[in-house]
Amino acid sequence: MNYEIDNLDKQILRLLMQDVTRAYTDIAKELGVSGGTIHVRMKKLNEMGVVKGSQLLVNPAAVGFDICAFIGVFLEKGSEYKDAVEQLKAIPEVVELHYTTGTYSMFAKLICRDTKHLREVLNEKLQAVEGVQRTETLISLEESISRQILL
Amino acid sequence: MNYEIDNLDKQILRLLMQDVTRAYTDIAKELGVSGGTIHVRMKKLNEMGVVKGSQLLVNPAAVGFDICAFIGVFLEKGSEYKDAVEQLKAIPEVVELHYTTGTYSMFAKLICRDTKHLREVLNEKLQAVEGVQRTETLISLEESISRQILL
Amino acid sequence: MNYEIDNLDKQILRLLMQDVTRAYTDIAKELGVSGGTIHVRMKKLNEMGVVKGSQLLVNPAAVGFDICAFIGVFLEKGSEYKDAVEQLKAIPEVVELHYTTGTYSMFAKLICRDTKHLREVLNEKLQAVEGVQRTETLISLEESISRQILL
Amino acid sequence: MNYEIDNLDKQILRLLMQDVTRAYTDIAKELGVSGGTIHVRMKKLNEMGVVKGSQLLVNPAAVGFDICAFIGVFLEKGSEYKDAVEQLKAIPEVVELHYTTGTYSMFAKLICRDTKHLREVLNEKLQAVEGVQRTETLISLEESISRQILL
Amino acid sequence: MNYEIDNLDKQILRLLMQDVTRAYTDIAKELGVSGGTIHVRMKKLNEMGVVKGSQLLVNPAAVGFDICAFIGVFLEKGSEYKDAVEQLKAIPEVVELHYTTGTYSMFAKLICRDTKHLREVLNEKLQAVEGVQRTETLISLEESISRQILL
Amino acid sequence: MNYEIDNLDKQILRLLMQDVTRAYTDIAKELGVSGGTIHVRMKKLNEMGVVKGSQLLVNPAAVGFDICAFIGVFLEKGSEYKDAVEQLKAIPEVVELHYTTGTYSMFAKLICRDTKHLREVLNEKLQAVEGVQRTETLISLEESISRQILL
Amino acid sequence: MNYEIDNLDKQILRLLMQDVTRAYTDIAKELGVSGGTIHVRMKKLNEMGVVKGSQLLVNPAAVGFDICAFIGVFLEKGSEYKDAVEQLKAIPEVVELHYTTGTYSMFAKLICRDTKHLREVLNEKLQAVEGVQRTETLISLEESISRQILL
Amino acid sequence: MNYEIDNLDKQILRLLMQDVTRAYTDIAKELGVSGGTIHVRMKKLNEMGVVKGSQLLVNPAAVGFDICAFIGVFLEKGSEYKDAVEQLKAIPEVVELHYTTGTYSMFAKLICRDTKHLREVLNEKLQAVEGVQRTETLISLEESISRQILL
Repeated sequence: MNYEIDNLDKQILRLLMQDVTRAYTDIAKELGVSGGTIHVRMKKLNEMGVVKGSQLLVNPAAVGFDICAFIGVFLEKGSEYKDAVEQLKAIPEVVELHYTTGTYSMFAKLICRDTKHLREVLNEKLQAVEGVQRTETLISLEESISRQILL
Repeated sequence: MNYEIDNLDKQILRLLMQDVTRAYTDIAKELGVSGGTIHVRMKKLNEMGVVKGSQLLVNPAAVGFDICAFIGVFLEKGSEYKDAVEQLKAIPEVVELHYTTGTYSMFAKLICRDTKHLREVLNEKLQAVEGVQRTETLISLEESISRQILL
Repeated sequence: MNYEIDNLDKQILRLLMQDVTRAYTDIAKELGVSGGTIHVRMKKLNEMGVVKGSQLLVNPAAVGFDICAFIGVFLEKGSEYKDAVEQLKAIPEVVELHYTTGTYSMFAKLICRDTKHLREVLNEKLQAVEGVQRTETLISLEESISRQILL
Repeated sequence: MNYEIDNLDKQILRLLMQDVTRAYTDIAKELGVSGGTIHVRMKKLNEMGVVKGSQLLVNPAAVGFDICAFIGVFLEKGSEYKDAVEQLKAIPEVVELHYTTGTYSMFAKLICRDTKHLREVLNEKLQAVEGVQRTETLISLEESISRQILL
Repeated sequence: MNYEIDNLDKQILRLLMQDVTRAYTDIAKELGVSGGTIHVRMKKLNEMGVVKGSQLLVNPAAVGFDICAFIGVFLEKGSEYKDAVEQLKAIPEVVELHYTTGTYSMFAKLICRDTKHLREVLNEKLQAVEGVQRTETLISLEESISRQILL
Repeated sequence: MNYEIDNLDKQILRLLMQDVTRAYTDIAKELGVSGGTIHVRMKKLNEMGVVKGSQLLVNPAAVGFDICAFIGVFLEKGSEYKDAVEQLKAIPEVVELHYTTGTYSMFAKLICRDTKHLREVLNEKLQAVEGVQRTETLISLEESISRQILL
Repeated sequence: MNYEIDNLDKQILRLLMQDVTRAYTDIAKELGVSGGTIHVRMKKLNEMGVVKGSQLLVNPAAVGFDICAFIGVFLEKGSEYKDAVEQLKAIPEVVELHYTTGTYSMFAKLICRDTKHLREVLNEKLQAVEGVQRTETLISLEESISRQILL
Repeated sequence: MNYEIDNLDKQILRLLMQDVTRAYTDIAKELGVSGGTIHVRMKKLNEMGVVKGSQLLVNPAAVGFDICAFIGVFLEKGSEYKDAVEQLKAIPEVVELHYTTGTYSMFAKLICRDTKHLREVLNEKLQAVEGVQRTETLISLEESISRQILL
């Protein structure tokens, strides 16, 4: 279900999507409304599920995680998807998992320290998940764009 | 270049990766150190490039963006990659872009409102970029995991 | 077996393929024959199996079925085709099913309400059919042509 | 845009999707409403675009069209899609055309008399369309299911 | 066009498909008809195009042609097929050429002396044909069956 | 093992590869040697295995076999190849079978009457062979070249 | 772990990578250092694992090994990789084996005498390894470059 | 051309393929022949092209080259192969290059320092070679076997 959000909601979200630590009073001043309005709107957006949280963004490469890889997963049977998801949640290197159209049963994004770490995660963790038959790996050699959708 | 970060750095980052709006004094109390220590450490982690910013996380589906798609891009010549990246930055629906190993020249993540919007972005924006020959699209029918790497 | 149909048969079929509700007397007048001739010819074409019926054409998108998808189905063994067909008949979202040359064991056309509905049909119905190993999905982002063959 | 249709609308549509030549008075009797109600409802469903027309269904094989094929079309550049559609409309053997996700630029359904006719359509008509680079053909060896979506 | 052939035609053809040098009088005796009947029938089968000729079968490997390969040919544009055929006829190593459904524009069978000869034919002859973009090669490592269709 | 054949051998073979029914005396005259020489040479070529036999060439399409198809066969395990060959020999529509490099376990050529016959052979005979997992079919829409290697 | 090697180390390695039989005294003279320095450096490079040994390079084709092939191996389950490696070590024709990203579970390089030998190794040795489902073969028709990395 | 080598040749080669620095007198003693015999045989094997040289084997990872990758290269036209080879020889990271059967025009092995270096080589060197259209990359995550063929 999609909720109707108005222009003021969008303006507030845009500012906080750039810097979530900014004070509501500061935002209120920029948008020409009262601080209370910002509080009311953000409360509503949280309750509506528009806002999922606020997050410190860490650069994985700066803490030794050099490899970002996309993994197409083939299951023995497509119907094993739900069980496989639960087991994949227990592998911390899996940072995204999708049920996708196209050739793969599932599509995952992994963050690993180096190629040796990637091999271990693939061979000892991911390919050991019950129902996983084989995987195809795309390694990202450079991330050129990374941002949220523009509201 | 990877910087050495110690255990205290990691503990601070973990707490802020869960909730970036948490007060430093609160974090300091939990970790048994002074609030000043948290400030010093975070200043260093920012300068080192470990921290990239802080972000309000918005649920795209809740504001009418129902389609998440992965796009494999084939360029007419692989050497056109750098020019293509610049043009793709001007398409706001492209939220991630990677130079990857495997069959594609580039690999992108798109967020669109619906299948009609996706068709327009693919046909009128992405396939109109100079050097782009053709694209392959995987649509995510469900996102089962979405998180940052565990430090 | 193909039956010989003459020019008058073709002219009658062409007019009714455009609008099946048109009165036979009206068609007879346009083609310069008697109304009885139209009845005789249509009776023969029905008996010969040339005419399969008459159908109200409903626009799926107008009643909330927004997604049209083509599904390539891989069976565990190609010989399970006949049993799989019987089970697929019980899935109303499958509106076409073909035994095709090329890479897939079977090729299906599905009509679903939205991507969530498609995921449910794929994962809970189609991939649960005995013998189905995995599927590949092409989503139609726009239907540009839809018509019967020109006689 | 999707319109709300109620249960009575659906019951009327279901009966006419099976046999469009059935009299409204007959339908009215079965559903326990007046004939005028059927007229009012059908008028509304036509105006809303729910009903696209009524069609005599002809069996292509019975009039000598033995081959049904699905054709994946690769364009030299994806951006040539709109021009290609216009040219493909002039090929009567193309009975469906879709802009699809996945590996192809476009996806078509063809009805031809025999393999010789298919070769001519592919080589002399379809591959002669400006912008079409190459095609991949799946031939349907048997159509096991063919029906409209169940309302 | 297919001609009707009767049982006696089939019996004659079967015997000559095994050994074309066999005398008509010998065949006549085996089938319990006159020698003249065999002559009449074979004359008709030749005129009807059922019989294409008679051929000494040579074992390529025994005269130094060790490599049998199947080549999928991709043309720059599918419409260049007819011109490409004419040029391929001038390459004696191409012993079969088909216009096929599926992923390739054309499909060829080659007989070469060794892998060096195959490389020369591919690189200097086949890939030099105007319109040929690239080729995919399957090498036969063993021919397990080779025969004509059983009448 | 390859045997050395000289120029006269080649000239004799070339003439008989065009028309095997030609009299040895006629060949001897054309090549300026005695009829006995032709007999001696052909006896040697037969004993050496250079000549495999002589065959009446029948045009399959003229006797109602309209479909020529190439089938890539995937086995459940590549090691089942030898057993599968034995079973495939019992299917008369399989006129060639190869163990090939590339993506398939085996590669076959089939001659069938029509698409319905092809479907039956694929589904009821070929895919019923023990060890066969699935098949990929290329249909020949036109055979442009068919000849033996030029000696 | 990578060790720091200085410019003199590199110069020594470069000379020995070209010709390992060259005398240390000769190398010392060329680089303007003492023979003892060469000994000390080479001892350190051996202990550090930089030097793996010294090898007579034999040309396989000159001793009757004409075929070089790359084999993509698909395992029934990716997790069987370690056991499969052990069995593949016992096949002397396998001269390289890699665990790779992309579509294959493993990727091997084989040296064989001829295509018959390759078929035997593939069918009787490699595909008989427990866990190996199927293989894809690329045959090298010419090796244009073969050298070590330039230090 | 393959030369005949006898058992003594093979025994000498085997010992030197393990350790090329071993003294001929030592080898002679082990094989029970005179040192002069070893010299004579090795001279002949060098002249025959059986021996290509002797090489210090360096472990690339130990000197900072962590990435081994296989690259399938697609040329715009297969006929550009010879020119492309010359340009690829100038890229030192390309340590092997093959003209192969299968889907690629050429197949290369690369040694690079890290993923950033690989991206530079691919994008700025390899994809900049005239005629190269695009590349597919397999990264080796582990080399499990690396040896010469067993004589």
